[in-house]
Amino acid sequence: MPIVLGQHFIGGGRSGFGQPLHKSIDATTGEVLPYSFYQAIDAEINAAAQAAKAAFCEFRQISTVRRAEFLDAIADELDQLGDDFVAIVCQETALPIARIQGERARTSGQMRLFAKVVRYGDFLGVRIDQSLPDRKPMPRVDLRQYRIGIGPVAVFGASNFPLAFSTAGGDTAAALAAGCPVVLKAHSGHMATADMVGCAIVRAAERSGMPKGVFNMIFGSGVGEGLVKHPAIQAVGFTGSLAGGTALCKIASERPQPIPVFAEMSSINPVVLLPGALAARGVTIARELAASVVMGAGQFCTNPGLVIGIRSVELDAFTDILKEHLGAQAPQTMLNSGGLRSYRQGVEHLLSHPGVTHLAGKTQEGKQAEAQLFKADVSLLLNGDLLLQEEVFGPTTLLIEVADDTELEGALRALRGQLTATLIGEPTDLKRYQWLVPLLEEKVGRILVNGYPTGVEVCDAMVHGGPYPATSDARGTSVGTLAIDRFLRPVCHQNFPDALLPKALQNANPLGLKRLVNGIWTSDPIF
Amino acid sequence: MPIVLGQHFIGGGRSGFGQPLHKSIDATTGEVLPYSFYQAIDAEINAAAQAAKAAFCEFRQISTVRRAEFLDAIADELDQLGDDFVAIVCQETALPIARIQGERARTSGQMRLFAKVVRYGDFLGVRIDQSLPDRKPMPRVDLRQYRIGIGPVAVFGASNFPLAFSTAGGDTAAALAAGCPVVLKAHSGHMATADMVGCAIVRAAERSGMPKGVFNMIFGSGVGEGLVKHPAIQAVGFTGSLAGGTALCKIASERPQPIPVFAEMSSINPVVLLPGALAARGVTIARELAASVVMGAGQFCTNPGLVIGIRSVELDAFTDILKEHLGAQAPQTMLNSGGLRSYRQGVEHLLSHPGVTHLAGKTQEGKQAEAQLFKADVSLLLNGDLLLQEEVFGPTTLLIEVADDTELEGALRALRGQLTATLIGEPTDLKRYQWLVPLLEEKVGRILVNGYPTGVEVCDAMVHGGPYPATSDARGTSVGTLAIDRFLRPVCHQNFPDALLPKALQNANPLGLKRLVNGIWTSDPIF
Repeated sequence: MPIVLGQHFIGGGRSGFGQPLHKSIDATTGEVLPYSFYQAIDAEINAAAQAAKAAFCEFRQISTVRRAEFLDAIADELDQLGDDFVAIVCQETALPIARIQGERARTSGQMRLFAKVVRYGDFLGVRIDQSLPDRKPMPRVDLRQYRIGIGPVAVFGASNFPLAFSTAGGDTAAALAAGCPVVLKAHSGHMATADMVGCAIVRAAERSGMPKGVFNMIFGSGVGEGLVKHPAIQAVGFTGSLAGGTALCKIASERPQPIPVFAEMSSINPVVLLPGALAARGVTIARELAASVVMGAGQFCTNPGLVIGIRSVELDAFTDILKEHLGAQAPQTMLNSGGLRSYRQGVEHLLSHPGVTHLAGKTQEGKQAEAQLFKADVSLLLNGDLLLQEEVFGPTTLLIEVADDTELEGALRALRGQLTATLIGEPTDLKRYQWLVPLLEEKVGRILVNGYPTGVEVCDAMVHGGPYPATSDARGTSVGTLAIDRFLRPVCHQNFPDALLPKALQNANPLGLKRLVNGIWTSDPIF
Repeated sequence: MPIVLGQHFIGGGRSGFGQPLHKSIDATTGEVLPYSFYQAIDAEINAAAQAAKAAFCEFRQISTVRRAEFLDAIADELDQLGDDFVAIVCQETALPIARIQGERARTSGQMRLFAKVVRYGDFLGVRIDQSLPDRKPMPRVDLRQYRIGIGPVAVFGASNFPLAFSTAGGDTAAALAAGCPVVLKAHSGHMATADMVGCAIVRAAERSGMPKGVFNMIFGSGVGEGLVKHPAIQAVGFTGSLAGGTALCKIASERPQPIPVFAEMSSINPVVLLPGALAARGVTIARELAASVVMGAGQFCTNPGLVIGIRSVELDAFTDILKEHLGAQAPQTMLNSGGLRSYRQGVEHLLSHPGVTHLAGKTQEGKQAEAQLFKADVSLLLNGDLLLQEEVFGPTTLLIEVADDTELEGALRALRGQLTATLIGEPTDLKRYQWLVPLLEEKVGRILVNGYPTGVEVCDAMVHGGPYPATSDARGTSVGTLAIDRFLRPVCHQNFPDALLPKALQNANPLGLKRLVNGIWTSDPIF
């Protein structure tokens, strides 16, 4: 059995001044696992934030080469977490081994991608306007801008991706890449996992020679508020519920110095079934959609929670097959008992709603989640019924039938902000419904054609974000290389002698960066 | 006398359902000018926001060429505002004619710069990751990202730049460039100016064929709250006081859908006088610094409000000369009586503070602002005395003497966020005090060497921003081309047929954009 200390990670060491109140739980059996975790006391929250602050000045100035080496070292350490680690993650989350092995590779791959971003250096956003001493009526002084890390970032891990969106997940990778030390609030659903990943990051920091407070992590309940309130923290990354994200945004905005919060919260990810596609391949779509709804017990931010089609014989036939598929699903164990409780409540709310009809799914009882299919009247959406707008986190989806294109447009306009929207259509459909694209662009972060929203590629072009309440700030993404932008801010240097400039801004371009010099992109030195 | 209707600008027309309660004031004489302005009623606030919303979908999709033509047309209309216009601006603000003529050129120049940004197209931030169907273990789908406008933007004009930071100012230019319609809250200090500039923008919109609600403006007191609360508004740009900006941030964060606020608020812009420079050219520095303090009656966001030097005979000599200069200044008329009242209060607070000594300046009485010089004990700064951190908007500055480098470091670390910091030093100073640069980078948006912070160049590399309370979000700038970023958000298109993609993302690259394709920057089409 691996050693899991259950103490906080503060400034390169471990600390446990409070009580070991928290136990890790086997998600499948509900049994208590033999790992205890300390409740962080106020002094430890403070020490973690102070350690991050103390590390900031050194860490942000470490060369991009060394910062990239650190991220690569974390990736290597993650890859070396072996079978015993995977077994613990599976125990804590009830996720299958193959999924966790894949997620480990995704998480280390994400670190390596950010290492590439750091080496490449585009994120520094260098812009140079040289002096124009002879300009009339006024000369121009020399001005040089680059971007630096915003400061220590508090990261709240998500339950549903215990590796890729948690301790060493996307927010941590983006913050470290930006030069920001991190203080993690370990997720209570996978604390042993968090402990082992935390150790991996600290090992990587040690062998890369990083300052000690570059990564910190605290365990405990109710400790997030103190962390977000701490004056050393300069930004927050969060993935979780609308209620949780909203609470953090409120705390952050009421600080003496308000700070930005990037919260990825709630999305029902509408799927629009266009007529030609239903006629041509309704059977296939029903099978694929059902698979997307129940994948990972429906515990994805991008789970398709709303399916919209135009009333037709083909939609009826499709609905019958979707009913069969979702009715025949085996129950699945969820990530934790809290998640199951929320799912049961969500299903009960839908069942008790007079405007909602239950189409398929076994009675939700026992310790596992049953897949469910509901149907709602479009009027609920048009009248702004909140129940239809709120994510039910689990293997359930809601079908809405619209009368015609006008009602389809109305239904889509009535939606709140979403992470994704999907169009399923034949080429003729897509031509006819081209007008949906600009409408959906204003509602979501990612539009898919003939795909399913579960499955988020980590790359330059990905957007995992979107208008509220999908996220708290539509201008960010929490997946993909653009995620680094959330934690950077520009600083301008005016009339500096070359030797006093940071390397990124010096005439010789010693970092070999692509820079916007007098309005032209170039990698050349300035003479 | 030019025609000044004093009605609101809504959806291309004018509206005045409320009462003409507000009068424009001659800032020099205090006399009421013959222009009346209507108080916007709730229905008009709503109509203005709705007009912006109605225009958004069309406006954001108008080609970049036509959007740039619109910005150029605004610039042309501004340039054509003649002598009678300049006379009114001067009347309303007590600013000299040459300054207003210069500011008009700066404002139209700013519009033309953003037209260039729009034509260039880099702001679209195109990133394309093509599909990798053979990738193992999972294929990659085609993903394409670009940035679109965030939605209608509410802009609050500033008093101190009635043209460059007001109706057709930097925030308006950046929002329109981003494809966001604007609703202006006209500044009460220069309403006739605002009316005439509003007419110029509407003329430009008409002859460029823009949708009618692309620009809207309302007059009145207390109407800002309703505007920021309106669900159609998606972001706010503000330049003004800390109290005003903080109030707007609070309103925006408490909306059912919170929205970002970019408020440029309060900065005291420290100037650090290094020993070698004081020895070599203390006399010159005193003269230049005094000129910067009193320029425009000290009514600049970047006015140097704090001067720090290390105790020495040279600092004493410098102080004596600075006293002479500031003591000998003629009084100046401020922008409005509210500004004069605030200035008088600020001066009184400093005079009554036991830790602050008055070094120079005539008694503050009458209708004009007297330049003032104060000196404070460094302990006030080190102990976080708020008085020293708060901007006194007017021709005053505060000197702080530190004992040595350690105390200098402590004093600078004790500062809150600033727009600018300035180092005045000889080459030997700058070498010895190189350690100040990273420290100041973490405090400010712009660091100057041997210059004065008043005077903000509009270019690619400028940052007019900085950590709180200089602004509400250190990740933005309100001057320079980077300002457009505040009003953009990314959207990703997955697995789209080429014809369904927005032009910016199509294989042929019809807009000729520089795009990040599979990790490589290129302007080539994709085959």
